[in-house]
Amino acid sequence: MEPTSYELTIEQQFQMRLMEESARNMSQAQLADTLVQASRLIMLKDNVIRSLMKQLPVRAFGYDV
Amino acid sequence: MEPTSYELTIEQQFQMRLMEESARNMSQAQLADTLVQASRLIMLKDNVIRSLMKQLPVRAFGYDV
Repeated sequence: MEPTSYELTIEQQFQMRLMEESARNMSQAQLADTLVQASRLIMLKDNVIRSLMKQLPVRAFGYDV
Repeated sequence: MEPTSYELTIEQQFQMRLMEESARNMSQAQLADTLVQASRLIMLKDNVIRSLMKQLPVRAFGYDV
């Protein structure tokens, strides 16, 4: 895996700034609702990552087989 | 990819209920801060997924090569 996976791209850094701005303008109820949806999305992405890793050949992790 | 990647596990459904409970008890500032952190995490996970998909052999997507 490229080390850059762990850093935000320039575009994502821009999206983060928009998100910080939006968060400041949301009501408490909207924030709570959006946070719950975001948590669900994080878990689903965890599942996708787990599923993709199961399908990867071992050498993708740096082992020579 | 297994269709189950797109569904939460029983454990994750339980975590969702805890998260809904927590969200109800957070202040507006805490909610905004946690939402911004969650957004960052979603973007990082997107990067990991993109990176893993680049390393997958084409047949993992159902094509026979």
